[in-house]
Amino acid sequence: MSMKKAAVIMGSDSDWPVVEKCVKQLRELDIPVEARVMSAHRTPEQAREFAMGARENGFGVIIAAAGKAAHLAGALAANSTLPVIGIPIKSSTLDGLDALLSTVQMPSGIAVAAVAIDGAQNAALLAAQILAVSDEGLAAKLDAMRADMTAATLKKDAALQEKLNG
Amino acid sequence: MSMKKAAVIMGSDSDWPVVEKCVKQLRELDIPVEARVMSAHRTPEQAREFAMGARENGFGVIIAAAGKAAHLAGALAANSTLPVIGIPIKSSTLDGLDALLSTVQMPSGIAVAAVAIDGAQNAALLAAQILAVSDEGLAAKLDAMRADMTAATLKKDAALQEKLNG
Amino acid sequence: MSMKKAAVIMGSDSDWPVVEKCVKQLRELDIPVEARVMSAHRTPEQAREFAMGARENGFGVIIAAAGKAAHLAGALAANSTLPVIGIPIKSSTLDGLDALLSTVQMPSGIAVAAVAIDGAQNAALLAAQILAVSDEGLAAKLDAMRADMTAATLKKDAALQEKLNG
Amino acid sequence: MSMKKAAVIMGSDSDWPVVEKCVKQLRELDIPVEARVMSAHRTPEQAREFAMGARENGFGVIIAAAGKAAHLAGALAANSTLPVIGIPIKSSTLDGLDALLSTVQMPSGIAVAAVAIDGAQNAALLAAQILAVSDEGLAAKLDAMRADMTAATLKKDAALQEKLNG
Amino acid sequence: MSMKKAAVIMGSDSDWPVVEKCVKQLRELDIPVEARVMSAHRTPEQAREFAMGARENGFGVIIAAAGKAAHLAGALAANSTLPVIGIPIKSSTLDGLDALLSTVQMPSGIAVAAVAIDGAQNAALLAAQILAVSDEGLAAKLDAMRADMTAATLKKDAALQEKLNG
Amino acid sequence: MSMKKAAVIMGSDSDWPVVEKCVKQLRELDIPVEARVMSAHRTPEQAREFAMGARENGFGVIIAAAGKAAHLAGALAANSTLPVIGIPIKSSTLDGLDALLSTVQMPSGIAVAAVAIDGAQNAALLAAQILAVSDEGLAAKLDAMRADMTAATLKKDAALQEKLNG
Amino acid sequence: MSMKKAAVIMGSDSDWPVVEKCVKQLRELDIPVEARVMSAHRTPEQAREFAMGARENGFGVIIAAAGKAAHLAGALAANSTLPVIGIPIKSSTLDGLDALLSTVQMPSGIAVAAVAIDGAQNAALLAAQILAVSDEGLAAKLDAMRADMTAATLKKDAALQEKLNG
Amino acid sequence: MSMKKAAVIMGSDSDWPVVEKCVKQLRELDIPVEARVMSAHRTPEQAREFAMGARENGFGVIIAAAGKAAHLAGALAANSTLPVIGIPIKSSTLDGLDALLSTVQMPSGIAVAAVAIDGAQNAALLAAQILAVSDEGLAAKLDAMRADMTAATLKKDAALQEKLNG
Repeated sequence: MSMKKAAVIMGSDSDWPVVEKCVKQLRELDIPVEARVMSAHRTPEQAREFAMGARENGFGVIIAAAGKAAHLAGALAANSTLPVIGIPIKSSTLDGLDALLSTVQMPSGIAVAAVAIDGAQNAALLAAQILAVSDEGLAAKLDAMRADMTAATLKKDAALQEKLNG
Repeated sequence: MSMKKAAVIMGSDSDWPVVEKCVKQLRELDIPVEARVMSAHRTPEQAREFAMGARENGFGVIIAAAGKAAHLAGALAANSTLPVIGIPIKSSTLDGLDALLSTVQMPSGIAVAAVAIDGAQNAALLAAQILAVSDEGLAAKLDAMRADMTAATLKKDAALQEKLNG
Repeated sequence: MSMKKAAVIMGSDSDWPVVEKCVKQLRELDIPVEARVMSAHRTPEQAREFAMGARENGFGVIIAAAGKAAHLAGALAANSTLPVIGIPIKSSTLDGLDALLSTVQMPSGIAVAAVAIDGAQNAALLAAQILAVSDEGLAAKLDAMRADMTAATLKKDAALQEKLNG
Repeated sequence: MSMKKAAVIMGSDSDWPVVEKCVKQLRELDIPVEARVMSAHRTPEQAREFAMGARENGFGVIIAAAGKAAHLAGALAANSTLPVIGIPIKSSTLDGLDALLSTVQMPSGIAVAAVAIDGAQNAALLAAQILAVSDEGLAAKLDAMRADMTAATLKKDAALQEKLNG
Repeated sequence: MSMKKAAVIMGSDSDWPVVEKCVKQLRELDIPVEARVMSAHRTPEQAREFAMGARENGFGVIIAAAGKAAHLAGALAANSTLPVIGIPIKSSTLDGLDALLSTVQMPSGIAVAAVAIDGAQNAALLAAQILAVSDEGLAAKLDAMRADMTAATLKKDAALQEKLNG
Repeated sequence: MSMKKAAVIMGSDSDWPVVEKCVKQLRELDIPVEARVMSAHRTPEQAREFAMGARENGFGVIIAAAGKAAHLAGALAANSTLPVIGIPIKSSTLDGLDALLSTVQMPSGIAVAAVAIDGAQNAALLAAQILAVSDEGLAAKLDAMRADMTAATLKKDAALQEKLNG
Repeated sequence: MSMKKAAVIMGSDSDWPVVEKCVKQLRELDIPVEARVMSAHRTPEQAREFAMGARENGFGVIIAAAGKAAHLAGALAANSTLPVIGIPIKSSTLDGLDALLSTVQMPSGIAVAAVAIDGAQNAALLAAQILAVSDEGLAAKLDAMRADMTAATLKKDAALQEKLNG
Repeated sequence: MSMKKAAVIMGSDSDWPVVEKCVKQLRELDIPVEARVMSAHRTPEQAREFAMGARENGFGVIIAAAGKAAHLAGALAANSTLPVIGIPIKSSTLDGLDALLSTVQMPSGIAVAAVAIDGAQNAALLAAQILAVSDEGLAAKLDAMRADMTAATLKKDAALQEKLNG
């Protein structure tokens, strides 16, 4: 059985500079990814149809990035029972608080998994962790990545010691 | 030509105690009203179809009330070019700020007319003002209602003078 | 019968860079528009008289843009039963949250239709949607504009596919 | 020359339970006070005329109490150069933050003196301090009141010592 | 292969009235669940060991509920590459905004999937959706549950029609 | 009797770029002004002594500008019964909301008159309005200034008409 | 050498129901404590003198509890170089956010150690931790108390297991 | 007995430009300081072990700086009964409010002493004040530093007088 795909949907192509990190991280983990521009408000029909067919089209998880009154993650979640991860995008006003609340405060019955404002890399990691629940190889990759991250932080700590105490 | 109808859509029947004031106010102004329970998340298909057919089904304005990550007004606006008024409903947490931002911070291209948190009466008045743009009789009713409101406030002022100065 | 006009009132000429998009959008839809600088605080008399005479002077909708303690939309709404749309303007502090709350949290009896902070284009669209309630030609234009917007988003989606998958 | 009067204007008679403390405090200081119900939105004409005539009608200071999108203080300040004190009233949503920002964030040119949310007593004290600038007798009363307040706090401190160490 | 378990960790047993809905929902979906009281601050050692061993102890997903400076979800996520879902709990002050930000604003590298404040049922649904990625039977149950939810909303809509027009 | 002076106290000389507008406005109105750097935290003794002696030293009003946990206005008000106007200064974090709340949310008994964040010009106008309560000449100047402001706004309105309709 | 004392200052005796937990916790740890009612605004002279003499009067740490524009901790810190712990008290409006910001956002040069809103017990623990830096016996007590707290949480965990699986 | 050390822990080396001021201030006061990069999320094991051994390794106080969902101070405090000071770091979104709430809103039982957002210098001063409780020499240095700070502010006041009045 081949690995399930991750969908990365953004509400506007202006979100790409943030969302790009998500796609990169998924690819580094060898997770097949499809990135799309779809809007809950400007192309609601396409978003709905994508969500309704996502599971049978081989997707295992959906990531949705949107700003302001960020309805995209919720709109996709309303049309699929796949896990949907929402990335609130910081737009020019309100520092992304509007997008965060619009993404995370979902009513009972339809869940969205929110990550931090502009948290594109973490959205990819969360998607990978979800796919890794039934994929030991991917789980091992994630564990290795954690070890690397720990090592990198220890190295930065050592570098600071060096700089200060020389 | 008969008057266009107002639709009053609420995301949950638990919103009725707030939304009821909206329906009452519309009826007092003799505006034909249809009140419905529809959810952007729990019955997205119904909400979408309602919005798509609203203009040809004789509606002139749509009012949508929802709490938390309040996507309902935006979801209806994405599927109709009728004016859509959003009432952010105060739910148990965050005092309705989440619903307000989810309703008002719409992206460019799809507009929603937001009123105050739990502002059900004003949603009805705004709907009436919209229908009155091309209905002189309704405009006259609204002017009369304003005059009554002014008179009521003057009466309260007089009552306070009476109480304080006897 | 000629089309009703839209009024676009700004509290200060420093709001023009934002408000300009509103005027442009209205003109693109061939809606007659009158743009004015009037302040609830600096020229209250002019604002009041404008609002009181707006309906008989051929206006069908009023758009008001103001920042900080944004009283302009409410002040106009207090003196007219035409629909009043408020654009909260982001000023140098508080990211426009002050203007949003001052615009949207109107007391019962006097309604304002608030759009997003700096949401000038949507204010124009909302005004057009209001005028289109009784104007089939304008409604058709708005539907066509929606179709264009959907097509533009689909094209951006295709461009992204092209970029990523070549 | 007789003492100038203080005006206490509230946007709704439902504000009276809060505003009452303001009127009481002014009376305890023997400041002539006129309390009125006037609304920037429901009786804008009355509010405007009151403000325009206030100085020549013997008022020295105006206090305005209002909730939600609290425009009352600003509307009065726009029509008078008397000092205007704004009391933001906590209404059922948002804990009064909306009223605070609508009252205090005035644009340059028209000033309002804001006190705390529901700060009715302090509004009275501030009004008294303003009138006392040119009234040595009132200034002396305010100094005496301060001394009493200090004494009362010292007594509470002593009572706590007694309770704890008895 | 037997189904993976869901862990439901709460920071304090005072969170149980909220968290109980999560456990109930998981059980209704026949997902094996283990509910525990563990605190990032009061029993950090137990929380850490639980997270480190969770995958090999048969867990597929971890749900963590905590209030105020809610570190629990992040602390578990720091010690496991299983997906961790955070439920911000509303405590006596700040309406749960503190818990929401402490849960969702995770730094790059360690992801948490946040649901709404007090969103216990949605945490269970999200956990089920995660486990269902590789479990067709569970996916079918979730689809059926959605259909029931839609039907229930339609029924409420019908009841409202009946009440209003009956 | 010569005119009472206005004191303009700033918590740090880094506040000067904002506060300068306040001093300029006072001077334009020919109000004698004394500008000082004093801190509630760094020079509490000087601040206290200044406030205690202010009335007998010929001051009629005190303006205090401070950022962050802005205690300066309150500290001065605690030691004088002169009216104290607080200008919350926007510092590098939190957009001045901290300074606003620290200035305006005074406990009952000690009042501060807060103006907008960075509202230096309005602080000067408010001070002038306070001094004008017993100074007809100054009141006339303020009325004239208002008329100029109205004329300036009307001119900007005319300029916009010219630009648009030319 | 006898143990240094902890001062617990509250701005108003109405804060006692919250502050009482702080005094109790200190007494349970056998730390000599003096509880006082003093206000930065109502008894500034007493507060200042207390702070100036605190170190030589045998105090090692000062705890200050205040609500709204909570200046008390900062005012004490401005007059002593002892560590000052601030407890922001939740008052009737704004959920204590005003008190938190007024307490914690101190300018550079004068530090306050803020604990959570209404965090009276933690203020006591922090004071004890400060005194324990040079008091091994007290440090041992705090370690024992931690062990008890861990044990109590483990017991609650066991009780939940019993209830659910028992 | 030699002086106890201060630990300065930062969650990421990107925090160094802020944290550097803290280290500098401690060194100016001749307090032995150890600065480290450790993360509650990326190197939880190292952070835990550091905290557990801190007292016996000669530390008297721990300072922890972190942004976003800032768990570092709390994680250290959970593993040590030394006083822990938290510096909330302003990151790219939300102006540091997330870090502030994640740092200060600790649950009962585990205390953190929070300073202002980016308040690195004050964290150092607070640490010094804590160590000075049992170190008269350090207390004297702090008193001298206060006197210098007061003198510097008086000098700035004089410079402003000079500039304005020449």
